Amino acid sequence: MGFDLEQATGLLARTPGALGELLSGLPDAWIRATEGPKTFSAFDNVGHLIDGEETDWIPRARIILARGPEPRFEPYDRFRHYARNAGRSLDSLLDEFALLRAANLAQLRAWRLTEAELDLPGEHPALGRVTLRQLLSAWVAHDLGHVAQIARVLAKQYVAEVGPWVPFLPVLTDHPVPRS
Amino acid sequence: MGFDLEQATGLLARTPGALGELLSGLPDAWIRATEGPKTFSAFDNVGHLIDGEETDWIPRARIILARGPEPRFEPYDRFRHYARNAGRSLDSLLDEFALLRAANLAQLRAWRLTEAELDLPGEHPALGRVTLRQLLSAWVAHDLGHVAQIARVLAKQYVAEVGPWVPFLPVLTDHPVPRS
Repeated sequence: MGFDLEQATGLLARTPGALGELLSGLPDAWIRATEGPKTFSAFDNVGHLIDGEETDWIPRARIILARGPEPRFEPYDRFRHYARNAGRSLDSLLDEFALLRAANLAQLRAWRLTEAELDLPGEHPALGRVTLRQLLSAWVAHDLGHVAQIARVLAKQYVAEVGPWVPFLPVLTDHPVPRS
Repeated sequence: MGFDLEQATGLLARTPGALGELLSGLPDAWIRATEGPKTFSAFDNVGHLIDGEETDWIPRARIILARGPEPRFEPYDRFRHYARNAGRSLDSLLDEFALLRAANLAQLRAWRLTEAELDLPGEHPALGRVTLRQLLSAWVAHDLGHVAQIARVLAKQYVAEVGPWVPFLPVLTDHPVPRS
């Protein structure tokens, strides 16, 4: 399936609502649970998505669209949210994520990107040369990856409760060494 | 985290809304795409969840609660939905899933299950003796597993589009041999 800007934007617009339906009001024991040391809880995943809105996808698109001689991205801090969101509630993060996402998609639409602009390059600090099209595709896949991760970390809290069902529920044993 | 009937019911009530937000109105190219031969698309996942409402979780709970001498479950057909839903739209399946789930949760709540009832046994055709508590826990984990699977199958459609980002987006290479 090729990248389609309108379809990609449409999917990015869905994530805050889907996560709100899944998570809003869930008990803290579920929201704060992880897959093990140094892994993200559902709460952390939402914080990480907010970091992406503030420091990753659209800021990097701006660098590409500025067409400077060295369109190098700032490194991305995967752990910024830990300090940023201490003391916050998940519901307030979900609201903030929805607002930030809506503003970023309004910016994306306002650019009315052409095919030629989608081919413009940026320089990723670890991955090297990437295009704006690849950046926007990665934004979509990144969203979906964190939806999957949130569902997985919630499911794993029931691994002892399902008893003999474990082998029939692969989500419970995915990522025995989490890669998140 | 121990099983809590109210929390489990609360999470089960969220799945139709979350999947509606994520999937309703997405283009067919995305909805019908799979991870490879004999794997489920997003459409198939919703059909499979409907099969669970009609033939798995609550029907099996009924068998347990009947307290008969042989509380043996009917085998579950993981592919019933292929024939059942031929020609259907995803939106109509999402609506049907929401209605079936709401009715099943109304039944679950109406039972007002006690701790002693949650310990009652059933006989799974492959897994042997299971309790009602384990059955209901598996229902929750099964939902979350299919939310994760849906997000993963959607994400994988962008594996070529993200270019150099693949190693940073583990969802794109999860389940190289799908276990769904």
